Amino acid sequence: MNPLFPTVTIIGTGLLGGSLGLAMKARGLATTVRGLGRNASTLEQAKAAGAIDEIHTDLTDAVIGSDLVVICTPAATVPDYLDKIRPLCARDMVVTDVASTKGEICSHAREAWADPYRFVGSHPMAGSEKWGPEHADADLYDGAVTLVEAMNDHDPAAHGKVVQLWESVGSRVISIDPDVHDAMVARTSHVPHIAAAAIAQLLKDKPDAKPFVGKGFQDTTRIAEGRAELWRDICLTNPDAILEGLDDIIGQLEGVKQAIAEKNAAHLDEFFDAGQSARRKALES
Amino acid sequence: MNPLFPTVTIIGTGLLGGSLGLAMKARGLATTVRGLGRNASTLEQAKAAGAIDEIHTDLTDAVIGSDLVVICTPAATVPDYLDKIRPLCARDMVVTDVASTKGEICSHAREAWADPYRFVGSHPMAGSEKWGPEHADADLYDGAVTLVEAMNDHDPAAHGKVVQLWESVGSRVISIDPDVHDAMVARTSHVPHIAAAAIAQLLKDKPDAKPFVGKGFQDTTRIAEGRAELWRDICLTNPDAILEGLDDIIGQLEGVKQAIAEKNAAHLDEFFDAGQSARRKALES
Repeated sequence: MNPLFPTVTIIGTGLLGGSLGLAMKARGLATTVRGLGRNASTLEQAKAAGAIDEIHTDLTDAVIGSDLVVICTPAATVPDYLDKIRPLCARDMVVTDVASTKGEICSHAREAWADPYRFVGSHPMAGSEKWGPEHADADLYDGAVTLVEAMNDHDPAAHGKVVQLWESVGSRVISIDPDVHDAMVARTSHVPHIAAAAIAQLLKDKPDAKPFVGKGFQDTTRIAEGRAELWRDICLTNPDAILEGLDDIIGQLEGVKQAIAEKNAAHLDEFFDAGQSARRKALES
Repeated sequence: MNPLFPTVTIIGTGLLGGSLGLAMKARGLATTVRGLGRNASTLEQAKAAGAIDEIHTDLTDAVIGSDLVVICTPAATVPDYLDKIRPLCARDMVVTDVASTKGEICSHAREAWADPYRFVGSHPMAGSEKWGPEHADADLYDGAVTLVEAMNDHDPAAHGKVVQLWESVGSRVISIDPDVHDAMVARTSHVPHIAAAAIAQLLKDKPDAKPFVGKGFQDTTRIAEGRAELWRDICLTNPDAILEGLDDIIGQLEGVKQAIAEKNAAHLDEFFDAGQSARRKALES
């Protein structure tokens, strides 16, 4: 039986790209995985781990003749890759990405790519505070939710193949409009990340606080270990929804400040109860 | 051999009080543990679990003849208990508490109690987002850090016994000035808790966001499950340090807003790098 995608090109072979290569090889979804990147040691690590078969440093060589191109670089660099891939793209090539923001990327593809669309945006929610090919894992996507751009004038075959790709590596696929996606993940992921990084900085230049750091602080700030480059790009490519979420948080904190200043116990009770109840509702299955 | 405290009175037999009763019984540190509280079912659960031997509803009966009184109620109620216990207190009785704020409580004791001080404030850092006697655990304090009010005109015997109490249940004791304590835990615990409750509320009235909730959101908001009453009292009894920490967080978030609006990639890089580095420094051993 032929694999789903005989030749695959992965651009950026860090945690997400490397894991996708491993997952596709382990499941027989690809015969040859080509890796393209700027960092030679990342590529070599990915090859040594078996995530890619070939190391490429030239985009044209890496893309020509490929059946699937997956762009696994930080969000802000994706539109530029799309522009470069566009003229190299054969009629039956499928292109996707893994960035955590989708509005800018998908609308860029929509403007730049002629009908039928063969770029279908993806966002596998399988990130981690770890990064780099040394953490790549063939089962990273297994059991994860992957958000796929909802069909909207796409080539149906291309759309179906992207859905099949993620399902084949174990993801549950949810189709979603890119702008709705960005509004939702701003609140579930992007703004919480920014807040966690701010919480961590409460201890900037406070070495004396170390004995008082407990599990609460540790868990609350875990995601602040994430890669700065990635989160910078998320902020730059999802500005509106993130600004709205930051205003929400700041407004809440201002409310708590006022309640503390006025010794308003009822407001504080309500605030902490609302936090508990919102969390429970968000996590209940 | 006589136990360290033949008769112990625990006021408030929820998670912390119940666990202390269990720990002292399990380690032979007490012969009789008296439980006092307002909630009959909490007291009965604590007795059924073996955390207390006697149920009391009258403060005088519960305290007279006791060797150690541990006040395990939310912070704002502790000064009132101190006032009520004061006239019942025998010369050799030792009194402590477990509240997460120490400045107000210790200065209240200092003003209200005559020399020599037999109240020594404690803060075992063994809280949890769970509460109630059903979660009580004889090993809750084992391996935890317990902050004990630094000796300052205390009766040395009383101070020594409070330190010995926590060490006997497995805690590592750190002695600390109450105001320094409050300034530090505001940043490691109180303000992170308020921020986590605010993050959780990003999803208030957003049922559509549920599919996008991942492990990051879950961990970042875990502590928001805590008991509202407890955190309200923490806010009311540590206002200055908490307001300062909230201003710090709000200032950082305003900085991120401005950087996003101005597409200032360098500021964002610096912000996320600083979050990562502050967390690593805070957690390194």
